[in-house]
Amino acid sequence: MMTATKVKERSLLGMKELAGSEINQLLDRTAYWDQQSEKLTPVLRAHFVANMFFENSTRTRFSFEMAEKRLGVQVLNFTAAASSVEKGESIYDTVRTLESMGIDAGVVRLKPAGVLQQLAEKVGIPLINAGDGNNEHPTQALLDLYTMRKHFNGLKGLKVSIIGDIMHSRVARSNLWALTKMGASVQFCAPANMQAPELEAYAPYVSMEEALKADVVMMLRVQLERHASGIILSAEQYREHFGLTEERASRLDPSTIIMHPAPVNRNVEIDDAVVESSQSRIFPQMANGVPVRMAVMERALQ
Amino acid sequence: MMTATKVKERSLLGMKELAGSEINQLLDRTAYWDQQSEKLTPVLRAHFVANMFFENSTRTRFSFEMAEKRLGVQVLNFTAAASSVEKGESIYDTVRTLESMGIDAGVVRLKPAGVLQQLAEKVGIPLINAGDGNNEHPTQALLDLYTMRKHFNGLKGLKVSIIGDIMHSRVARSNLWALTKMGASVQFCAPANMQAPELEAYAPYVSMEEALKADVVMMLRVQLERHASGIILSAEQYREHFGLTEERASRLDPSTIIMHPAPVNRNVEIDDAVVESSQSRIFPQMANGVPVRMAVMERALQ
Amino acid sequence: MMTATKVKERSLLGMKELAGSEINQLLDRTAYWDQQSEKLTPVLRAHFVANMFFENSTRTRFSFEMAEKRLGVQVLNFTAAASSVEKGESIYDTVRTLESMGIDAGVVRLKPAGVLQQLAEKVGIPLINAGDGNNEHPTQALLDLYTMRKHFNGLKGLKVSIIGDIMHSRVARSNLWALTKMGASVQFCAPANMQAPELEAYAPYVSMEEALKADVVMMLRVQLERHASGIILSAEQYREHFGLTEERASRLDPSTIIMHPAPVNRNVEIDDAVVESSQSRIFPQMANGVPVRMAVMERALQ
Repeated sequence: MMTATKVKERSLLGMKELAGSEINQLLDRTAYWDQQSEKLTPVLRAHFVANMFFENSTRTRFSFEMAEKRLGVQVLNFTAAASSVEKGESIYDTVRTLESMGIDAGVVRLKPAGVLQQLAEKVGIPLINAGDGNNEHPTQALLDLYTMRKHFNGLKGLKVSIIGDIMHSRVARSNLWALTKMGASVQFCAPANMQAPELEAYAPYVSMEEALKADVVMMLRVQLERHASGIILSAEQYREHFGLTEERASRLDPSTIIMHPAPVNRNVEIDDAVVESSQSRIFPQMANGVPVRMAVMERALQ
Repeated sequence: MMTATKVKERSLLGMKELAGSEINQLLDRTAYWDQQSEKLTPVLRAHFVANMFFENSTRTRFSFEMAEKRLGVQVLNFTAAASSVEKGESIYDTVRTLESMGIDAGVVRLKPAGVLQQLAEKVGIPLINAGDGNNEHPTQALLDLYTMRKHFNGLKGLKVSIIGDIMHSRVARSNLWALTKMGASVQFCAPANMQAPELEAYAPYVSMEEALKADVVMMLRVQLERHASGIILSAEQYREHFGLTEERASRLDPSTIIMHPAPVNRNVEIDDAVVESSQSRIFPQMANGVPVRMAVMERALQ
Repeated sequence: MMTATKVKERSLLGMKELAGSEINQLLDRTAYWDQQSEKLTPVLRAHFVANMFFENSTRTRFSFEMAEKRLGVQVLNFTAAASSVEKGESIYDTVRTLESMGIDAGVVRLKPAGVLQQLAEKVGIPLINAGDGNNEHPTQALLDLYTMRKHFNGLKGLKVSIIGDIMHSRVARSNLWALTKMGASVQFCAPANMQAPELEAYAPYVSMEEALKADVVMMLRVQLERHASGIILSAEQYREHFGLTEERASRLDPSTIIMHPAPVNRNVEIDDAVVESSQSRIFPQMANGVPVRMAVMERALQ
C-alpha cells in the first residue's frame, strides 16, 4: 500500500501545484520517450490503468491509451455514455468501484467543478487529470510546453498569446500556471464575454493585433453555442475579430509558431489553410501528447 | 472440439444447477486468486473471450475484464448500445457470429427471459452469465458467498436477510439458490408490490425489524420507476419503510455485516453514511468480484 | 518512413485496383492462417492499429479486432458514436490525429462517398477499407472469394448470383470486381428500384428463377426503409419476390452454396430455416473473415 503522500505525489491534478523542477523532470522524461524508436517498451506490463471519461473525448482518450499501451500497461476503458453513470451512479462511486477492483491508477476526465480534487482526497490510487471542467488540463499544458521547448530550445523569456474563450478554458489555465512558472510570459486575447476576470492578475488582455506579436500564438477552440446570452458573435464575426485568418497568419513573424489544443473549428478560430501551414505545430502537438503521457504514467506507476 | 457435455460443464448459467461441491471448488479457487500478490498471471494468454453486454453495466463488465486481463486473456468487448443489435440483429445471431470468429468463451448479460438458456443449448462454447433478466446473476452470488465465507469462516448456519425488490432481482434469486445449498438460511423483506410469490416456498417474508436480526443484511438496489402502477412508494417513503437508515444500522448486532450488489441509491435503500461504515462490506464485495471471476474464467477455459 | 508508393501498396481500399495476382496472394495467405491451430501468433506485437468506425458495425469491427489480436497487434478502438466526431470534428482530422499519435495502420469504415480515397492520398500510413459507403467492402469480398475457393477448389468458371439491393451494396460491387478478375461470372437480381444502372456493363440482371441456377447464390441484406419513395415493397412482398424462401432453397442444385454478408433479416431476404441449412455457408463466411483480415493486416504492416 502506498502512503497518502506518495499517492498524491504520483497524481497529476493540475499544473498549479507542480514545482518548476517537477515540470522539468516530466519534460526531460518526455524527451526520452520522444526519442525512442521502439514503439513498444512494456516496462509497466503488470499494471492496470482505467481511463475513466465522464466527458467524451476522442483524442485525449486515444492519446492516453496509446501512451499506456506503448508502456505495456493493461488498459480498461470506461466512458460514461456507455455506462451506468447514466442511471444515476455517482462519479465518486464509479471511481471507488474501479479502485476496489484493483486498478493501479486512474485517468479521469469530468465536467463538474471541484469533484476531481475531492476524489483525489478520498481514493488510494494516483489520479491523472485528463480534463477537469474549466479548471485544468495538465497533460495538455505539458505537451504544449514540450512543443515550445523543442522548437525554441527552452521556455524562459518566451512570449505566449492565448486567444479565444479564456473563461471556459482549462487549457488556458493550465498553460498560464505552467508557463509563468517556467519563466515565460502569457497574454490573453478574448471577446468581452469570454474573458476570465479572476486571471487578470496573472496575464494581461491585449488586442488581437498585439496578440499576434508573440513567439507562440495559441488559438483555443471556441464553442459559440455556449454563450447563450448577451453579446453573441456568429462564427463569421468571431473569425473576423478573433480568428487566425490566412491574412493574419501571413503577418506573423516567421519565427512565431501556431498552436491549438484541437479539435479545431476550421474557418472559425483558425483558417483551414493555416492548420497545416509550415508555422503550425498543431499535428506535432498531438504527436507530443503521447510521450508526455508516457512520462506522466511512469511517474504515477513506478 | 469440446463435447456438448464438456461445454455445459464449463458454462456458468446459474447457481440453481450448480452442486454444492462445485460452489466450494469455485470459492476455494477464488481464495487462491484473492491471495496472489502478483496482479498479472497470464496463464490464459492464448484464449479469446468476448464480453457481450446486451444490457449496460459498468461494474460487472469492468470486473470481468479485470479478471480476464489478470489471467492474460485476449478480451473483446461488445456492448449493444454501440452495435448493430440496434438495427434488429438478434442476440442469437450476434453470439453465433462471435463464436464463428473463434472466441473461446462468452460472457453474456441480457434482459429477455429464457434467452440465455436457449443460447447455451445452441452454441459450442462455454457461456458465463453476467446478468440474466430477473433470473440469475451467478457471479454476483459467488462473490457474495465468498465475502460472507471470508468474514464468518464458513456459510453453514448463517442467517441472511435480503431486503428490497425481490420480484425483479436476479441477485436475490442466485443468492437464494446458492445460500440454501450451502446450509445458510435466507429470509426476504419487501414491500407487497416487490415480492416474488413463487419464491415463498424457499424463504419467508419477514418484517423490516425481523430482517435486521441476521448475520448478513443484504440490501438490493431499488428502481422505483419500474413500479409504474398500483401502490407506488416515493424514494422518501421507501427509505422510511425499507431503507437501511443510519438509525436502523445503529441497531444491528455488531457482528452483522451489511452488503449491497451496487450500484447503490444513496439515501434511498441505504443511507450515505452506512455505505462505507465499518460493518459494510460493499467495497470489499467489489474487490472480491475479480478473483471470483478469475475462478469462473479458469473453469471455463482450462 | 515509408514512401508514398509503399504506403499505397500496403493499403487496401478496394478490389477494383487489386491485380489478380495480389488477390491470389492474399487468399493463399488466408489459407495459411486458416490452417493454424494456434490462436495467438504475436508476430506483430510492436504494431499499433486503430479501428476507426465512423459507421457502426458489430461483426466487421469484431472480426478485425480478432484478426489483429491473433497477430499480437496493439488495438485501439474508435467509434464515432462514442467520440467527438459528434461535435463536428471531421473524419479527416480524426484520422490525421490518430496518425500523429503513432498508429501504424488504420482500419476505416465510413459512409460519405469518396472520403476514403481522399484520406488515403493525404495520410502516411496504410488504410484498410472496412466498409466505404456504397462503394467497396474489400475484406468482405475476399472472405467471400475464400469461402467459394475453399468449397469449389477454385474460382475460375464459377457462376455467382448476387440478389438484393445492388444499388446500395458495397458488397455487390467488391465481389463483382474481384470475381470477374478471377474468371468467375456474376449476375445480379434486384427489384427495379434497387438496381445499379452503372454496373449493367459488367453483369446482367436476371430473373429470380434464373438467379437460382448458379454455383453461388449470394443474398444481400435489404433495408427496406432506405427506399422511401416510388415503388415500395413490404417485407412480405420482398420475401415473396426476391427472398430465398425454403421453397426456393429446396429447388437449388445440391452443389449450390448459399451466402450472405450478414447480418441477415431472417424471413425477409432469407428464410430462417435456410440460414443454417447444409448448403448455407453464412457462418463459415464469418469464420473465414478472421484469417482474411489477418492476411490483410500482415500485408499492411510487414
